[in-house]
Amino acid sequence: MTVPAIKGVGTSLFGKQPDLHPSELVWRAVDEAMTRAGVTAGELDAVYVGTVFGAPGVAQRALHAMGIVGVPVITVENACASGTTALHEASEAVRLDRWACVLAVGIEKMTDQFAGAIHPESTDIEGRSGLALPSLYAMAATRYQHAFGVTDAELAMVAEKNHGHARHNDRAQHRTPHTVEEILASRMIADPLTLLQCCPIADGAAAAIVGPHEPGAREVVIRSSVLRSGQLWDHRSEHVWGFELIRDTARRAFEAAGIGPADLDVVECHDAFTIGEIVTTEALGLAPEGEGVGLLRDRHTHLGGPQPVNPSGGLLSRGHPLGATGLAQVAEVVWQLLGEAGGRQHPGATLGLVETMGGGVAGVDGNACAIAVLERLG
Amino acid sequence: MTVPAIKGVGTSLFGKQPDLHPSELVWRAVDEAMTRAGVTAGELDAVYVGTVFGAPGVAQRALHAMGIVGVPVITVENACASGTTALHEASEAVRLDRWACVLAVGIEKMTDQFAGAIHPESTDIEGRSGLALPSLYAMAATRYQHAFGVTDAELAMVAEKNHGHARHNDRAQHRTPHTVEEILASRMIADPLTLLQCCPIADGAAAAIVGPHEPGAREVVIRSSVLRSGQLWDHRSEHVWGFELIRDTARRAFEAAGIGPADLDVVECHDAFTIGEIVTTEALGLAPEGEGVGLLRDRHTHLGGPQPVNPSGGLLSRGHPLGATGLAQVAEVVWQLLGEAGGRQHPGATLGLVETMGGGVAGVDGNACAIAVLERLG
Repeated sequence: MTVPAIKGVGTSLFGKQPDLHPSELVWRAVDEAMTRAGVTAGELDAVYVGTVFGAPGVAQRALHAMGIVGVPVITVENACASGTTALHEASEAVRLDRWACVLAVGIEKMTDQFAGAIHPESTDIEGRSGLALPSLYAMAATRYQHAFGVTDAELAMVAEKNHGHARHNDRAQHRTPHTVEEILASRMIADPLTLLQCCPIADGAAAAIVGPHEPGAREVVIRSSVLRSGQLWDHRSEHVWGFELIRDTARRAFEAAGIGPADLDVVECHDAFTIGEIVTTEALGLAPEGEGVGLLRDRHTHLGGPQPVNPSGGLLSRGHPLGATGLAQVAEVVWQLLGEAGGRQHPGATLGLVETMGGGVAGVDGNACAIAVLERLG
Repeated sequence: MTVPAIKGVGTSLFGKQPDLHPSELVWRAVDEAMTRAGVTAGELDAVYVGTVFGAPGVAQRALHAMGIVGVPVITVENACASGTTALHEASEAVRLDRWACVLAVGIEKMTDQFAGAIHPESTDIEGRSGLALPSLYAMAATRYQHAFGVTDAELAMVAEKNHGHARHNDRAQHRTPHTVEEILASRMIADPLTLLQCCPIADGAAAAIVGPHEPGAREVVIRSSVLRSGQLWDHRSEHVWGFELIRDTARRAFEAAGIGPADLDVVECHDAFTIGEIVTTEALGLAPEGEGVGLLRDRHTHLGGPQPVNPSGGLLSRGHPLGATGLAQVAEVVWQLLGEAGGRQHPGATLGLVETMGGGVAGVDGNACAIAVLERLG
């Protein structure tokens, strides 16, 4: 078995970029990742592409123009976890000595397809009944508030933190900090989730080069990478949205890495809606169940605290171009671990975690969770 | 390294089935494959899903209802080669001892989305100019006819053969044989390709269970599986559509399997349009370049001849539900090698090949070719 490492990462800008072709987003992300890794087109053994709504072959066209031809190009879809699934498959390919130099790239051009909410498929009964993702998260939030006595203002603290973090991220979609009051006063989307508690529609791409770990190299090792499928909303569970799936995936990822949640210096996780980050930080073991809000109150997960969560601004502020998001999270953690995160650097970070939840647009099933533990050695 | 084998295959019916939910197609294919393989839901380590236009999580929902939960489910897209890409990834996972029991399933519900031709993406300049796939194949056909002195009637012989084969396939979309005259008299789609020379829009699913080869078991070994990306239409080439990509992929697949084209007993290849099969049989080495029509004239590739090509009826007659097609081809070759192909059985077949070409809908780039060499041992 080979230890896989991330040799370089890159991203486009994030946000509504209707005038750019998907290829232009891919080029920016891939060029940065390859340059950073010191890898040329001819050295790549294979490519994994993460996208949800990208046209068939969306990345092949861009890669072709970069001279990346001949090698296998495999596009993967796992809803919002598509980018992390691409990383997972690249990581496994290196670990199993299938390939030695693999590009993982995520791309989503949402403004081509969605003016507002994503429409449910005609066969998606739940979606057509109104159970779109904002509604599902809103119901989860209400249930959570009921169970643990959490206020609307406490939910909004997630958005306050992440919008504050994004101020330092010049690739983020929204860089304006907002107070809890402003967040609560923004337009209601699905009670109790207001506009500033919902991730925006974005265009973007992100990429990573994965290869065998070389001791002494300026790179980040993939200590573990786990992908699981499961339910977005398990009617048999007392828990809110996705909790068991994230917890089970995290347990395996921690075991494989030989660490626990207290060892993490930095986390990027799936804050598609404010409630998502709270439930996720609990499922990851950063706080006991029902006490996730305490992490915010204590500024434990703020930049400047001991375990910053979503220093990039997260999906809420960096934006959420579905297939690109997982690799954008990976890029942020890699930058943090290499000390390249600029104004949002968590000092001395060596161990980080990326978690992405893939909630199917096609209703209440069809979910995935991908978690990777990343470390800078030496 | 472990030798991967196909333990069981299954398919839905193929054709326009607007009243069926995608899950119903998946259930039929997966249930048949699992039953045939003697595998239960809890024994699966992972699932690869091939689809092109399926909604995010299209298969997770169906799998969930079958009790296939928790394990990684990775949806892959590679245009028309998506199903074969799913098989390739499953095969590699077994070969590299990543997993021991993997389901590959392809699903496409085209009648939900397309009434007629597939519309090009807004960013697809070639497609919007009229270079949709029928036009591209038609241009390739015309160029081929010019280069090698081939008549319209000779092109149509592919359709005559494959429509004739499908008569014996009770899961095929079109089971009516047609004469060359009828084929030429059908509605013109893109000169010289008439309606009966173009594959129809279809709904369908197909599945295969892949695991380590067990000597003595009633199964089919994957002797090699190769996936390459490349150009659908290479302006730098003197050759017609995809020839180099298929030839290069085939060369690698034959080398890895240690066989040559003359050793094959049966072939399923990508006859999306009649010209496609002619060019492909040449690129696979069944005939010298420019002499592919001879295979038809001599009935070499007809059922009853020494090397039947597309005994199932091919894409032209079985139908072409994009993501399902590759695994439907695999199912046909597995049935042939196990002597289970009924009225279309090629006697004594032990060595077969599956070839799928993935032409991006997004214009002239974005292509893939997947080839697998399959064998029944002992």
